[in-house]
Amino acid sequence: MTLQDNRTPKTVTAAMVVIGDEILSGRTQDKNVAHLATCLNDVGIQLLEVRIIPDIEQEIVDAINFCRKKYNYVFTSGGIGPTHDDITADSIAAAFGVGIDHHPEAMKILTEHYIVSGIEFNEARKRMARIPDGASLVDNPVSKAPGFRIENVFVMAGVPAIMQAMMQSILPELTGGAKMLSRSVGAPVAEGIIAADLGALQKEFPEVSMGSYPFYKQGLLGTNLVLRSVEPEKLDAAYDALLAILAQLDADINKI
Amino acid sequence: MTLQDNRTPKTVTAAMVVIGDEILSGRTQDKNVAHLATCLNDVGIQLLEVRIIPDIEQEIVDAINFCRKKYNYVFTSGGIGPTHDDITADSIAAAFGVGIDHHPEAMKILTEHYIVSGIEFNEARKRMARIPDGASLVDNPVSKAPGFRIENVFVMAGVPAIMQAMMQSILPELTGGAKMLSRSVGAPVAEGIIAADLGALQKEFPEVSMGSYPFYKQGLLGTNLVLRSVEPEKLDAAYDALLAILAQLDADINKI
Repeated sequence: MTLQDNRTPKTVTAAMVVIGDEILSGRTQDKNVAHLATCLNDVGIQLLEVRIIPDIEQEIVDAINFCRKKYNYVFTSGGIGPTHDDITADSIAAAFGVGIDHHPEAMKILTEHYIVSGIEFNEARKRMARIPDGASLVDNPVSKAPGFRIENVFVMAGVPAIMQAMMQSILPELTGGAKMLSRSVGAPVAEGIIAADLGALQKEFPEVSMGSYPFYKQGLLGTNLVLRSVEPEKLDAAYDALLAILAQLDADINKI
Repeated sequence: MTLQDNRTPKTVTAAMVVIGDEILSGRTQDKNVAHLATCLNDVGIQLLEVRIIPDIEQEIVDAINFCRKKYNYVFTSGGIGPTHDDITADSIAAAFGVGIDHHPEAMKILTEHYIVSGIEFNEARKRMARIPDGASLVDNPVSKAPGFRIENVFVMAGVPAIMQAMMQSILPELTGGAKMLSRSVGAPVAEGIIAADLGALQKEFPEVSMGSYPFYKQGLLGTNLVLRSVEPEKLDAAYDALLAILAQLDADINKI
């Protein structure tokens, strides 16, 4: 579907940069993209690009500097732990051309955390308090080591439970636009049957993005049809028209 | 970890471009990245970047033209069905600056398929035979509509079962480099405990990429340590040294 059709002035956009060799090696299945997309949808922000890149500083710098200029918000996941391969904070500082140092508030949070836990706050762990100059902290209620925000870039952990908790901390800081609404219907109709009518419907409703996704379930072939728009009346009208088309095709429709 | 350390002349690289609003909306969880990464690993090709982009021609053109120059191979998934939102083939033709038309062999495959199936081979379905000039077909044993290869770019379907079948067809065409070998160990040790020794070990073995991934399982905190290298002797030596470090830490190691 053509998201361009919804590029009204009200549209607020975002990109995600997933930093992690473990995703690129196939060792770990990413779960953060879908979570972020869903959270952003709920507050009226459209995720328009995801980049998954390795733990290499120049790659991180290039991706961040491209995305932060093109989109309203950028979210990163991964690479903010205590080990030598955690280079995200330093790379973000390099991208913005600012210094990086142990952040007083981050040091305080971690010092208290390790006193309470009875664990040594060693040099490696102090790396997790290194925050680019000018950044503000993002609360981490799970394991304390904070994420951070610098301008329109939010830096989060890669472990899904921590990323999700940080996302909760971030959401109140975001200014969304028009909320993307969606209606969908699954029909036991092959894409090739509905394609012509759907294309004509798309031309009739340029404000509604129409996506068509084939599925095979228990030997049955069908299509999930997804309509999305920031304009509720147009969305409803297009959806009714779609149902009429499917009824004409005598489809046994299951509303989803 | 720093893949740069393994950038020997033998390294063969790849990028993936996932084309699909349904992934960016959070509606669909991508499964193709991990599958491609694993397949490529097995033949000695390193996946170094993934981009997930919407069904917008200019976005597809830009991503393809960037990636096909930077990496040895590019793989795409999504957008090659019969509906109006399936614009991948046209966008790839635009990226290469070549024409696109119904491909005789693709038309033959689909004509036969629809005769056997007793289904109408209508105009929408004929869209699936549109292939950029100069491309060769990629076999699709699942639903027949072919993918294609143009220069170093392979275009596949987004439905995981079809993408996986196409990948099987593609594998014999790929020329891999040195195979990335890996050894890993999960230890009930926090990242902050092992970080200093691991960083020193990384410096001792620059040919081995060392990744550290924290986990929380059943209330236990631990770290998965992953060593990767194209040099088996160096990998084994680094792994033995890592086990010695963990033994000194008195860790209860479970070899994975």
